[in-house]
Amino acid sequence: MFFEGSEKKVEIVVAPGAPSLRSLGRDYWAELVSRCSASILSEVSNEQLDAYLLSESSLFVWDDRMLMITCGVITLVDSVTYFLDSYGREHVAMCSFQRKNEYQSHLQKSSFKQDVERLNRLLPGTAYQLGNLDGHHNYVWHMDKPYRPAADDITTELLMYHIQGDAAKYLRSETQSLAGIRELLDLHNLLPGFEIDDFLFEPYGYSMNGIRGDQYITMHITPQENTSYVSFETDLDIPRECPQLLTRLVQILSPASYDVICFNTQPAVSHAPQTHCVARHSQPLACGYQVDFEHFIRSAAIAKRAMCLAI
Amino acid sequence: MFFEGSEKKVEIVVAPGAPSLRSLGRDYWAELVSRCSASILSEVSNEQLDAYLLSESSLFVWDDRMLMITCGVITLVDSVTYFLDSYGREHVAMCSFQRKNEYQSHLQKSSFKQDVERLNRLLPGTAYQLGNLDGHHNYVWHMDKPYRPAADDITTELLMYHIQGDAAKYLRSETQSLAGIRELLDLHNLLPGFEIDDFLFEPYGYSMNGIRGDQYITMHITPQENTSYVSFETDLDIPRECPQLLTRLVQILSPASYDVICFNTQPAVSHAPQTHCVARHSQPLACGYQVDFEHFIRSAAIAKRAMCLAI
Repeated sequence: MFFEGSEKKVEIVVAPGAPSLRSLGRDYWAELVSRCSASILSEVSNEQLDAYLLSESSLFVWDDRMLMITCGVITLVDSVTYFLDSYGREHVAMCSFQRKNEYQSHLQKSSFKQDVERLNRLLPGTAYQLGNLDGHHNYVWHMDKPYRPAADDITTELLMYHIQGDAAKYLRSETQSLAGIRELLDLHNLLPGFEIDDFLFEPYGYSMNGIRGDQYITMHITPQENTSYVSFETDLDIPRECPQLLTRLVQILSPASYDVICFNTQPAVSHAPQTHCVARHSQPLACGYQVDFEHFIRSAAIAKRAMCLAI
Repeated sequence: MFFEGSEKKVEIVVAPGAPSLRSLGRDYWAELVSRCSASILSEVSNEQLDAYLLSESSLFVWDDRMLMITCGVITLVDSVTYFLDSYGREHVAMCSFQRKNEYQSHLQKSSFKQDVERLNRLLPGTAYQLGNLDGHHNYVWHMDKPYRPAADDITTELLMYHIQGDAAKYLRSETQSLAGIRELLDLHNLLPGFEIDDFLFEPYGYSMNGIRGDQYITMHITPQENTSYVSFETDLDIPRECPQLLTRLVQILSPASYDVICFNTQPAVSHAPQTHCVARHSQPLACGYQVDFEHFIRSAAIAKRAMCLAI
């Protein structure tokens, strides 16, 4: 059973004085989410942040910012255009849209180019491709409006492919549980103080949001053999607050390849032997962020058998 | 200007006693080629082999065998079904169909799955995937019929991506010529005695067929920056006849990544430093061939700027 774990992501910051996004209320966000055929599964809130776990990934809402991530074949742009039309484009100070390479891009309902054509009609912007089309790559679009991010406005994304070993085995097993996965990922030790909201899909698949003050973590696991994908994302200042975080996640999940994508930060990762950086891009964006993209892949050990396809 | 260089390929061997494929005549093959909206640009022949250079790649016809390769968004299966219907499936001793990973698979008119569904209706077969979907990979389908290839029935494919350096620069220049490309590729020294038929496309792009007795070489170059692709294929016994061939082609074209795919042979390649094998598959096929797939990629040196997309 194939499921496309690779995500699309939108981040929007509204201008000072614009209506609070949180005050729009749960019904508004449920409607927005439904516009791209997703739904809210559960939620956690604190004084600064509402985090919604979705049927296809996550939505985070602050007073002045929103972040939505979708996987599968969801057309996230449908929710973005709903937001821009209903909330008002004039209040938008910064808008960025990102799309990761898909395992099976031909099954998607729209291409990045089509997504951007729709966005450009509402907010003229600029699009970049980081990485090569024949390997891991990342598309980033942002609206053309000067913006100066706050010093703590940083993002780290760790995207892992082809997870292996005990963790992969557990995540594909019928005996897995939420408690078991939290323990496997060592969440309590790696990320103390976070309020965790997580969900286990049938027959497998795991989604997790965590919040602590105005900080978030989110993780989505598609464990299916041959097309496994695990994404982790946070606005934590990893080098200062938890310098071992990415290294530990890579150690636990043992992916055959992974990407590190950062906005205005450069956390370190200790790579296993025979792991190579095969694509590396660094791009300053006119919206005030510096984006860094690195694609790592392990050497193949012995020759494996091919995969026989049931067609 | 994007052009999909990655190819689809079909190879068919007919049973002893079946009508000679060459005797079907040029008009038959022109009609077959037109069924997938390609056309014949030029041809060379000798006593054993007719080689047609196509608007999208190549067609080779022996008395008992045919090999057709197409690039772009051509639906090669349209020509295969025409052949099976017009020539007669009952004469087919071996049929294999191969599809390389595309740069932009969402722009193709059909997926490999759809191609195989059509083939399976005419000739029940088995499909394999070699390599991971998030990197270079190769699909191979073959009809389910026992077949024993002759000892000299071997194939080597070298697929090169992101060519760099002087050769890439020349192949993207306005001053290039057929003679200049032949010299650049050192064809005369590397492959002595071959009768060469080649074509230069506008504004660029190079296709070449070469024949010598019953042996063939074919090469197709899509030099466009960021999506460059060069394929070379032959039935030569490389280890015995020209052991340096693949190494020299890689040296000349300096690709950032490349694949070596072999059927019943294992030629050596000397890889440049910092070149890593990141996927390796070996699969015996029930139709009598052993297919080996290896994907090599170079470490990224310094961080490059992202590619700004004109959308």
